[in-house]
Amino acid sequence: MEGIPREVLEIADGIRSMRIRGAGKIARSAAEALKIAAEKYEGAREPGAFRKYMARVADLLIETRPTAVSLPNAVMYVMQAVFTPASDFESLRNSVVSAAARFIEESNNAVKRIAEFGSRRIKENSVILTHCHSTAAVSVITEAYKQGKVVKVYSTETRPFYQGRITTRQLLENGVPVVQIPDSAVRYFMHEVDQVVIGADTITSNGAVVNKIGTSQVALAAHEARVRVFVAAETYKFSPMTVIGELVPIEFRDPSEVVPPEWLQAHRNVRVLNPSFDVTPPEYIDAIITEVGVIPPQAAIMILTERLGWAIDKIKQAGLTKLRFEDLVEE
Amino acid sequence: MEGIPREVLEIADGIRSMRIRGAGKIARSAAEALKIAAEKYEGAREPGAFRKYMARVADLLIETRPTAVSLPNAVMYVMQAVFTPASDFESLRNSVVSAAARFIEESNNAVKRIAEFGSRRIKENSVILTHCHSTAAVSVITEAYKQGKVVKVYSTETRPFYQGRITTRQLLENGVPVVQIPDSAVRYFMHEVDQVVIGADTITSNGAVVNKIGTSQVALAAHEARVRVFVAAETYKFSPMTVIGELVPIEFRDPSEVVPPEWLQAHRNVRVLNPSFDVTPPEYIDAIITEVGVIPPQAAIMILTERLGWAIDKIKQAGLTKLRFEDLVEE
Amino acid sequence: MEGIPREVLEIADGIRSMRIRGAGKIARSAAEALKIAAEKYEGAREPGAFRKYMARVADLLIETRPTAVSLPNAVMYVMQAVFTPASDFESLRNSVVSAAARFIEESNNAVKRIAEFGSRRIKENSVILTHCHSTAAVSVITEAYKQGKVVKVYSTETRPFYQGRITTRQLLENGVPVVQIPDSAVRYFMHEVDQVVIGADTITSNGAVVNKIGTSQVALAAHEARVRVFVAAETYKFSPMTVIGELVPIEFRDPSEVVPPEWLQAHRNVRVLNPSFDVTPPEYIDAIITEVGVIPPQAAIMILTERLGWAIDKIKQAGLTKLRFEDLVEE
Amino acid sequence: MEGIPREVLEIADGIRSMRIRGAGKIARSAAEALKIAAEKYEGAREPGAFRKYMARVADLLIETRPTAVSLPNAVMYVMQAVFTPASDFESLRNSVVSAAARFIEESNNAVKRIAEFGSRRIKENSVILTHCHSTAAVSVITEAYKQGKVVKVYSTETRPFYQGRITTRQLLENGVPVVQIPDSAVRYFMHEVDQVVIGADTITSNGAVVNKIGTSQVALAAHEARVRVFVAAETYKFSPMTVIGELVPIEFRDPSEVVPPEWLQAHRNVRVLNPSFDVTPPEYIDAIITEVGVIPPQAAIMILTERLGWAIDKIKQAGLTKLRFEDLVEE
Amino acid sequence: MEGIPREVLEIADGIRSMRIRGAGKIARSAAEALKIAAEKYEGAREPGAFRKYMARVADLLIETRPTAVSLPNAVMYVMQAVFTPASDFESLRNSVVSAAARFIEESNNAVKRIAEFGSRRIKENSVILTHCHSTAAVSVITEAYKQGKVVKVYSTETRPFYQGRITTRQLLENGVPVVQIPDSAVRYFMHEVDQVVIGADTITSNGAVVNKIGTSQVALAAHEARVRVFVAAETYKFSPMTVIGELVPIEFRDPSEVVPPEWLQAHRNVRVLNPSFDVTPPEYIDAIITEVGVIPPQAAIMILTERLGWAIDKIKQAGLTKLRFEDLVEE
Amino acid sequence: MEGIPREVLEIADGIRSMRIRGAGKIARSAAEALKIAAEKYEGAREPGAFRKYMARVADLLIETRPTAVSLPNAVMYVMQAVFTPASDFESLRNSVVSAAARFIEESNNAVKRIAEFGSRRIKENSVILTHCHSTAAVSVITEAYKQGKVVKVYSTETRPFYQGRITTRQLLENGVPVVQIPDSAVRYFMHEVDQVVIGADTITSNGAVVNKIGTSQVALAAHEARVRVFVAAETYKFSPMTVIGELVPIEFRDPSEVVPPEWLQAHRNVRVLNPSFDVTPPEYIDAIITEVGVIPPQAAIMILTERLGWAIDKIKQAGLTKLRFEDLVEE
Repeated sequence: MEGIPREVLEIADGIRSMRIRGAGKIARSAAEALKIAAEKYEGAREPGAFRKYMARVADLLIETRPTAVSLPNAVMYVMQAVFTPASDFESLRNSVVSAAARFIEESNNAVKRIAEFGSRRIKENSVILTHCHSTAAVSVITEAYKQGKVVKVYSTETRPFYQGRITTRQLLENGVPVVQIPDSAVRYFMHEVDQVVIGADTITSNGAVVNKIGTSQVALAAHEARVRVFVAAETYKFSPMTVIGELVPIEFRDPSEVVPPEWLQAHRNVRVLNPSFDVTPPEYIDAIITEVGVIPPQAAIMILTERLGWAIDKIKQAGLTKLRFEDLVEE
Repeated sequence: MEGIPREVLEIADGIRSMRIRGAGKIARSAAEALKIAAEKYEGAREPGAFRKYMARVADLLIETRPTAVSLPNAVMYVMQAVFTPASDFESLRNSVVSAAARFIEESNNAVKRIAEFGSRRIKENSVILTHCHSTAAVSVITEAYKQGKVVKVYSTETRPFYQGRITTRQLLENGVPVVQIPDSAVRYFMHEVDQVVIGADTITSNGAVVNKIGTSQVALAAHEARVRVFVAAETYKFSPMTVIGELVPIEFRDPSEVVPPEWLQAHRNVRVLNPSFDVTPPEYIDAIITEVGVIPPQAAIMILTERLGWAIDKIKQAGLTKLRFEDLVEE
Repeated sequence: MEGIPREVLEIADGIRSMRIRGAGKIARSAAEALKIAAEKYEGAREPGAFRKYMARVADLLIETRPTAVSLPNAVMYVMQAVFTPASDFESLRNSVVSAAARFIEESNNAVKRIAEFGSRRIKENSVILTHCHSTAAVSVITEAYKQGKVVKVYSTETRPFYQGRITTRQLLENGVPVVQIPDSAVRYFMHEVDQVVIGADTITSNGAVVNKIGTSQVALAAHEARVRVFVAAETYKFSPMTVIGELVPIEFRDPSEVVPPEWLQAHRNVRVLNPSFDVTPPEYIDAIITEVGVIPPQAAIMILTERLGWAIDKIKQAGLTKLRFEDLVEE
Repeated sequence: MEGIPREVLEIADGIRSMRIRGAGKIARSAAEALKIAAEKYEGAREPGAFRKYMARVADLLIETRPTAVSLPNAVMYVMQAVFTPASDFESLRNSVVSAAARFIEESNNAVKRIAEFGSRRIKENSVILTHCHSTAAVSVITEAYKQGKVVKVYSTETRPFYQGRITTRQLLENGVPVVQIPDSAVRYFMHEVDQVVIGADTITSNGAVVNKIGTSQVALAAHEARVRVFVAAETYKFSPMTVIGELVPIEFRDPSEVVPPEWLQAHRNVRVLNPSFDVTPPEYIDAIITEVGVIPPQAAIMILTERLGWAIDKIKQAGLTKLRFEDLVEE
Repeated sequence: MEGIPREVLEIADGIRSMRIRGAGKIARSAAEALKIAAEKYEGAREPGAFRKYMARVADLLIETRPTAVSLPNAVMYVMQAVFTPASDFESLRNSVVSAAARFIEESNNAVKRIAEFGSRRIKENSVILTHCHSTAAVSVITEAYKQGKVVKVYSTETRPFYQGRITTRQLLENGVPVVQIPDSAVRYFMHEVDQVVIGADTITSNGAVVNKIGTSQVALAAHEARVRVFVAAETYKFSPMTVIGELVPIEFRDPSEVVPPEWLQAHRNVRVLNPSFDVTPPEYIDAIITEVGVIPPQAAIMILTERLGWAIDKIKQAGLTKLRFEDLVEE
Repeated sequence: MEGIPREVLEIADGIRSMRIRGAGKIARSAAEALKIAAEKYEGAREPGAFRKYMARVADLLIETRPTAVSLPNAVMYVMQAVFTPASDFESLRNSVVSAAARFIEESNNAVKRIAEFGSRRIKENSVILTHCHSTAAVSVITEAYKQGKVVKVYSTETRPFYQGRITTRQLLENGVPVVQIPDSAVRYFMHEVDQVVIGADTITSNGAVVNKIGTSQVALAAHEARVRVFVAAETYKFSPMTVIGELVPIEFRDPSEVVPPEWLQAHRNVRVLNPSFDVTPPEYIDAIITEVGVIPPQAAIMILTERLGWAIDKIKQAGLTKLRFEDLVEE
């Protein structure tokens, strides 16, 4: 990749090879890469050339993991600054560098903010249920526990990968009393639960929450029992591509996560399906706790428009389904 | 147990030690024991003495497993004959022996009948979902498959004990195409499902179905999607004790079924709860398929009254919470 | 049909050729045929021979229209008397003749009774909505109107056959103020409606109501608006065959009822589906008004057991799916 | 009333003047009156004359309070014995006297039985909510409290008459911890409640529960939160007249119960409506606890048929809307 | 209309006389008229005079069809440019002309965009149901079909005007397999349907969808079966007047569309009601597909504010219920 | 409070001592105080000093009633102007004074606007139900009545404080026909009701409505019967603090409002709970009628962002839970 700094290429490679993992880390690394690219830019000192260069970097980054929602989020956020009208090159470069820095800082603070905002929504003497593992959800619960409001947390095991055990461990380390239960026992214990707090993988433009398989069942059982469901999610989980109708892809993982290989060999005719995520409709969610505030799920589109409006408009106008910034650079 | 035939005591012991297992086998063994007891009775040739003796046998049997619902069912069914007014001893003994034989025969045929009745309710080209393992449910599905009506069966794994794998294996052996899924994926696949067919552990007098943990979540997800839920259950699953308000006890099994022992040792503060059953309310069930016909769940009380009315009346009058036939023998 | 009186054969033929139509008429004609058959019997004067003969007549009648629910209803009702233990031929014949006469009389009075019972359930100043045409429903509404309780009736047109216009005409003739509306306007007007009164084609053992296509949508819209739905139905609409799992067959009628032939010819690739009936689940029905009283839909099985219990038991025991009385005659 | 014993007339008068009050007392007094009437009968020693006499007494009693549901219940129960075929007068009289005595005894024991059955349905550590005042409901709660299962009871004040304060007082006297709340706070506290236990004024043939105004709101709020609702009701609350379509009349009481007279005078144009009862549909009720067992609301018709079948049949056949036994006496 | 160009008057006349029909055409014609008016303006070269003139033209256009929602939409969009502060006349005129041109272009592309966005939301192997005729909905379905994702489309006939047949014809012409069904069969087939795609006549500020009569029933039946409902609607269907509380008027059309004239004459007492539209509440709609993106129904107000905010503010401040731009021109 | 004008201190005192009451009056008084403070400011003529001074005044005002939602609303609205970048002191002061004046004027007109907008949503011949007392709701109903659209209003008494009687009186004075009912009769009369119109105490960022205890029950009963619920609420009822997760505090008032003191003394063990407010979830509300338009409850966050965005951002960034403007003044 001629002209692109080595550090940037290393970050791109890290994301591609999954050495850099987790929605937040990916997002911040991408913003960092754009920041470095801007700082190390050595081409012509005029906005046009700089924009072309940055677009190339942006496209390079986005291609590293086409389905990660936080990645285009970070890139689009920074690239808005790139395409802002500017009189001279230096002020343009500066504003791009600050946009990247701002993104990184906000992202770093996001979980802390979510914990702060979300913990206020937990009532005194609450029994909480959570599903799978989410740093944001664990933070909300832990913060509320520190404020003396959490009596007990039900943590589902989250088959087939048992991510719930990570949640259990982290909560225990924070001193929170935890009860570990099988996924199938959620409705059994729901009548005791005061609030459900979960994370999110992706949030769509109409307010649906894509999260670990089983989440929608938990939310349904909560809804049936008038138990409120809070989703703790950083704004980089909000998917701009869903504004133009893109479906969030649901990965199907290996059968061997569900059944032992010997069982599979003994039952050759069986088919094993192992979807990673499901979709919880907005009517089962009371509020999404983001670092920019507590909103109803239906306001996801407002957050997307506020944060990434320019980029979304560009994609809409260009009729792109796959985001390509180089196509956006006007000659 | 003076005067009680050895074969009877052996059966009682078999039930107690769980050598005789499964709702159907327990019920038929108990009826067999009562039949043998009647046939081998050597006491005074008059109804009063015979009734006392039979009451002792009945109480002995019932105490072997106080929470098994099919056991008192069988005993009460036969004991109705014991307490029928009778002019002479021999005709009384004969009617008791036939009642026991009839119970055994009907019980033996019950699953076949349920398969026959239930398979008719399955529509052409059906995708079926089932949870846990139930011989009656497997039989309904298999019979419908043989009639060419079943396209595919989703079988949940049924954590923590994986009884769903038994279901999967049996269905595969019967040639039925099966897809094995984690419990948490039920709602994800529900939009494809045409009918849910499940078994039951116990059915209460107001039509609730107590069954393997997770069943109520499956039924809830089906209800949300207007998918009909059929429960395949022999009449000896209908609990007469719930008529007088008895709750069906929910067993909590060992944590080690849910988490590996080493994990448990590494997380000493955790509590693990492992309930065996949950309760599905009648509004989520379209019909119960029994060997005496297809009924709405709310007709459970009618079936109980028809089959065990006398015994239930006796219990109500005597104000007994624990069933004791010796108390029912009038001096 | 050797030995079967000509009048009986004529009735059988009348039902087969649809000269005798309507659930009530079919039922009463079948009972009449059995009555005549019994009265004109000229075989051996002993119960066994008489039973065989009657079984042949019964089977002949039932085969004339295998899907009409009122036909086996009438036949089973009368045949219970045929199979009652009897010491002598004459008393047996007499009891059969009275059973048939009783069935006919009750059936004749059924609509009047239903009107009487159902009209009491209509509140003062009611706006009623009805769908399709049902003599029983029209009678309930008319009777309530005569009592001064009906302000207005919404009558749906009931595409594709416009049976709603028959309802409209009959109600207008009875002086009832009627508003005719398209089927698609039901939900629009539902907020004005106080009660829905409809008829039934068949009622199943778990309380579902099979009725003219569109009925389940009407009931759903009523349920959404907390409007009570009453089904007016004679007991011969309750299907004994559904006790053993039989599905009520849904007839698909000719496309030409839905689109004009020229349109169909101009659009050769189109498929037109024209189902006659749909199924309303019991949870959308507040009560069924029968000539034996006002019951919840879930009590259909109780009515069936009370009226046709013996015959249903016989079918269950014999494992028959198609009703054959000759198979029930013990040698 | 010629020929009717003075004690009987006194009871009739007591019911009419509301000196004898309460569903249970009215029912037992009526049965007592019929018992006395039978015992003191001095007319012709043959069944026909006796039946006519008893029919007159029965009609006299029923007319004393035409809307009390327990009154015809008691009378119909006893009168079934009157109309039983009998060879001689004395055995007929005896069976009538025993029927009356049995009714009285069962009625006297009913509340105790209901407490026993209902208390078993209360789970450990339950928070219970009740509305208005019902002896049966208070007994269930108290019995469950004695078994150590009740943590707290929310008792609504039950405007406009504050019958909830009677409930509160009785529960406090029994040692039960009570929280008194306004009717409008029911939904606020519902998320803490485990079970709702209420009484009933009348239960209809399709399982609806007519009870103190506000009950249906309580049940709705419970249903919304998946909280089970138990209705504690003696079988004499089940209305046989609803089988033939009779609506349960809803009394509107005086405005002065709702607003002070001076307010009413200051606001002459206002209309004040003060209905005494409302109707809770069966889908909001999990079980009815009666002295004959725990049943789903839809089994009310089964109970009515079992207890009062003969009398209901007579009324249906005679086409009576107002119950008159004299019309039932065949010449 | 002195001083208003002839072409503008002709367009106004075309809309008034319904020669210009269809929401899109009306909107674009109105924008075109405003563009022409601006271009041909010959009055004083200063902003104030130009604004007065444009306001007169705008008011003239709006009065041509007071109930058409797309008309004020187009006019308000362009008029925002008219009232934008401007230093000189020419730049003001230019910005007005571009606003009109932009509106026209976006409107022309709207259906294509909606097809693009909406088709992405259709899943593989989908069975789709649609109601009535909507160009946007047909485009979404056709586009998804071309992508190989549509198995079958159920098209309702849409009584009384049979617009569904237009949908059927267009889909068939596009090669899509269609099944034509009566409106009353929607719930019958809903269990087979994966997604509902419909158009809209008007969308209100709180997210309700006004569309052809029957739409709300379709949406209700979809909701009951957890089937997602997508509304394909151009942004000029969003009604700005509903922000200030205006109700969308529901036209009642002629009875002769519902019943033949001879039937009407034969039944003189009948009333026939034929509403054109009904209102689907937002809770039954999963997403609205617009040319500016996929949004939840509750974001309609956001779209309105973004596109027409200035005009809506003016109306609110002026307290106008009928939109008059001349009143907005400050002296 | 050195340097703060006496009039400002008097207003602060008036709010603190509750001499100034009612959400609207408090809000306008606070804006007035800020206006006076700005006008009378005598410190250094430069923005920095002025901002510090105004921040002190703002903090003083906010502390007077920490839980009143309209107070910070007014203060934040005006303070946005204080923190706007400004070149010189005078223009800054002027813009602050105008912001305060604008707030006061809009607030004064708010109820009139709401009446205008809301009345348009009321349909012809409407029966309306309202709960408690709200000036905005009374205005909507009265305005609709004047337009000839209101047939009758059900007004709940609203225990324990009977604020419903104030509503009743005001409506009667305006000529509106009113029926006064107990709170417990809401569901009984709901089937007659066409629309519910209520006020609000506070509206949260995710669209929940905090209002007088009982409101959520009314809304639930309306939802059950498909009756639309409109909330009439000025925008100063929208709580900016809920954006950062603050819960709206629910005041518990004195037991003596619920029971007479003598009753309390006679029942010393009783606990009486008297919560003032409850929370109605957004799914039970069709629209909120504000002075800026008719919106879905989920758009509350949009209104908050538009009106108070700057201040909310400041709070979020500063991580404040208690609003302190002095902390926002940059050195």
